[in-house]
Amino acid sequence: MDYKKIDNKDIEYILSIIQDKQRVFHGENINEDYSHDELSATKKMPEVVIQVLTTEEISKIMKYAHENKIPVTPRGAGTGLVGSAVPIYGGILLDTTKMNKILEVDTENLTLTVEPGVLLLDIGKYVEKLNLFYPPDPGEKTATIGGNISTNAGGMRAVKYGVTRDYVRGLEVVLPTGEIIELGGKIVKNSSGYALKDLMVGSEGTLGIVTKAILKLLPLPKKVMSLLIPFPNLDMAISTVPEIIKSKSIPTAIEFMQREVIVAAEKFLGKKFPDNSSDAYLLLKFDGNTIEEIEKDYEDVAKLCLEKGAFDVYISNIKQREEAIWSARGVFLEAIKADTSEMDEVDVVVPRNKVADFIKYVHELEEKHSIRLRSFGHAGDGNLHVYILKDELTEDVWQRKLEEVMEDMYKKQRELRGQVSGEHGIGLAKKPYLNQSLSPTTLNLMRGIKSTFDPNNILNPGKIF
Amino acid sequence: MDYKKIDNKDIEYILSIIQDKQRVFHGENINEDYSHDELSATKKMPEVVIQVLTTEEISKIMKYAHENKIPVTPRGAGTGLVGSAVPIYGGILLDTTKMNKILEVDTENLTLTVEPGVLLLDIGKYVEKLNLFYPPDPGEKTATIGGNISTNAGGMRAVKYGVTRDYVRGLEVVLPTGEIIELGGKIVKNSSGYALKDLMVGSEGTLGIVTKAILKLLPLPKKVMSLLIPFPNLDMAISTVPEIIKSKSIPTAIEFMQREVIVAAEKFLGKKFPDNSSDAYLLLKFDGNTIEEIEKDYEDVAKLCLEKGAFDVYISNIKQREEAIWSARGVFLEAIKADTSEMDEVDVVVPRNKVADFIKYVHELEEKHSIRLRSFGHAGDGNLHVYILKDELTEDVWQRKLEEVMEDMYKKQRELRGQVSGEHGIGLAKKPYLNQSLSPTTLNLMRGIKSTFDPNNILNPGKIF
Repeated sequence: MDYKKIDNKDIEYILSIIQDKQRVFHGENINEDYSHDELSATKKMPEVVIQVLTTEEISKIMKYAHENKIPVTPRGAGTGLVGSAVPIYGGILLDTTKMNKILEVDTENLTLTVEPGVLLLDIGKYVEKLNLFYPPDPGEKTATIGGNISTNAGGMRAVKYGVTRDYVRGLEVVLPTGEIIELGGKIVKNSSGYALKDLMVGSEGTLGIVTKAILKLLPLPKKVMSLLIPFPNLDMAISTVPEIIKSKSIPTAIEFMQREVIVAAEKFLGKKFPDNSSDAYLLLKFDGNTIEEIEKDYEDVAKLCLEKGAFDVYISNIKQREEAIWSARGVFLEAIKADTSEMDEVDVVVPRNKVADFIKYVHELEEKHSIRLRSFGHAGDGNLHVYILKDELTEDVWQRKLEEVMEDMYKKQRELRGQVSGEHGIGLAKKPYLNQSLSPTTLNLMRGIKSTFDPNNILNPGKIF
Repeated sequence: MDYKKIDNKDIEYILSIIQDKQRVFHGENINEDYSHDELSATKKMPEVVIQVLTTEEISKIMKYAHENKIPVTPRGAGTGLVGSAVPIYGGILLDTTKMNKILEVDTENLTLTVEPGVLLLDIGKYVEKLNLFYPPDPGEKTATIGGNISTNAGGMRAVKYGVTRDYVRGLEVVLPTGEIIELGGKIVKNSSGYALKDLMVGSEGTLGIVTKAILKLLPLPKKVMSLLIPFPNLDMAISTVPEIIKSKSIPTAIEFMQREVIVAAEKFLGKKFPDNSSDAYLLLKFDGNTIEEIEKDYEDVAKLCLEKGAFDVYISNIKQREEAIWSARGVFLEAIKADTSEMDEVDVVVPRNKVADFIKYVHELEEKHSIRLRSFGHAGDGNLHVYILKDELTEDVWQRKLEEVMEDMYKKQRELRGQVSGEHGIGLAKKPYLNQSLSPTTLNLMRGIKSTFDPNNILNPGKIF
């Protein structure tokens, strides 16, 4: 694509808008971190980095970039896994992490208004003090809410509470042309024209830059309790999940894990997990307002699991055990990463009753391609994370095997009528697979929407499709 | 707009596709019902009506209409209130009511796959027999699910369970060009490109024709119980609602009603309501799996209401009273309609803590314009239904007053940062008000999306914007 390169005149213009020189970096002053995200292999340095502070600054920058055909990539904390925030055409990188103010909590409408750079962990801390609850719970708590909105982040509580899109009531957005629009608001329902708010969520920073978000809160459940349930094998564990969902006791989370991942987490944390003697585990969380209410729920589910062949049911009714379990679960990604030289990931989502089929197939692939694969994930919503480990493979062999394993896995995903990404997004890393998974007609509709919002294709170009 | 008129050649082509003459009507054979919906004033006869049976038929018709620039209007049961299904440019009307098969219930993934013409009441009956639950609950049970999807219908259970969009997992859609696409599926989460499924829901048949829907089901709550709570006045009733929402006991429904509407319903049904001695009422519903669970919830809420000045709390723990209350609530619209010569409606949604302000303003307007207004609605989600009654007014005076009252109400809606429609959609009737409520930039984005999907502007043209 034919984009304008940044020159001195552009820098002068940017400085005239930003005024504070400390927030503009170019050339050699740019930190190398801005060239990549948490996982994806692609690296590219931006030509200029701007740490923006206000909607108006972003609007002026976008207007200029639109008129001058300069590519702009928005970036939060850089914790993405698929390259969405990598500035592959150079240009301007807009760092939104300094827009990190919580603007308002409205306890009558149960909403929280935030700037995009607020971290997920700070939202949690802030609202829980007020006895309120923001349910979306992706593993990475140091992500920004802007990043969560851009990928429609899911997380562990999705089984009961849904995903980020379900908790975004309203957005302020700067369009690629620099215009500022508001979508939704504090209202609960809306049938007033096309669902642009829902479209913006999950668009990976390609349709607009979120500058303010009104989030939906719930009353904070007073009690939380988990069950760790060892099974003889993964198949038995996972085939119990549809039965749990059908029971009337919907857990907050239903995770599956295997011994080798638990062992990696123990090693990473230097702490023992409550149990690692079985091949496979389900980890269930329940929340509610009283212990009695939760007990009634989990007793039914515990009984069901034992009937389905579980070895035992460990109840984490003390805070230390609860923390031991979930802190281990929280570091799975990092623990696997620390256990190999390099890795790549798959984040497919399949119908809930196909999870066992997919995981069985992953184990077949491990043998077929002689490569280590590690998996864990959200059994309750069919969203699986599979990691492909390089270990001691040479670069050549690694690249070849990686491609073959990926091809096989995404083929299986299509066969099971799943989708490419459950929560991490498409970015760069998964473009070829989205291309195989969606019809050309569907992809063309997406391209049409992109050019409606961004006629000069300057906002985060080259991503998704 | 410059559309082709239907001629004999077109009819011949249509008959070559449909083959069954009994499903094609033209000229004088068209039933007058097809010219209007349930409420909106605009009437227009289509040139030809086709009772379609299959996706393939619709695809072929659309391809032909696209190539020949013939306008096509999809229609379900015609229970809409804003004119979305009125064929204002004539052309082809596609009646989908004969596509009324329930195709599959998947008890492992908890999904129901249906054709668009299945009635909401038939879905309810079907899944409840299986101990399953489809939560969206608009007042009009004889609407088709296709119609519900087209307006993103809400209904009374939205407080706890959300709206139609939250229960649509996947769609098969025929595009205006005749191409067939699938969006979503049985998967629970999805971050794989733009949210076209969410965009299609609520697009009022302007972006595509839904030919199949995969709906999300829940386990059926075993017990339901309601509270009818009389208050001295509406202000006291409605200002209690944010307190209820903040408590940890989220009701399924929070409706408000006033004596005059209850009296109209009594007259319409020829049956007494449990109580009509107070000016204002809240009607709350609770559901759960045991009586004890529900009791704990409603006891807290009952106490709260009494503290806030409620006269009493009537508990409907027997089936007859439960039915008496909700059957009255179910006929409010018809009862008001039967009580006047003609009427029009407003379906605004405002932030929950602004409901009292809006209703107070409605009462001021009644005096200001000397016209009867009746209102009821979903206090729990801020979605209000206000009816403007013609009574004995002459046509001239009625039109003038109607316009003035509407202008005032929508001005108030904007002032309170609400939106034009909470659940009925925009159609024709509310176009001018959407135009005032959304920014020109936002409307242009919607127009751009429309022309991406429908370059020849033949599918339900002239609606929404």
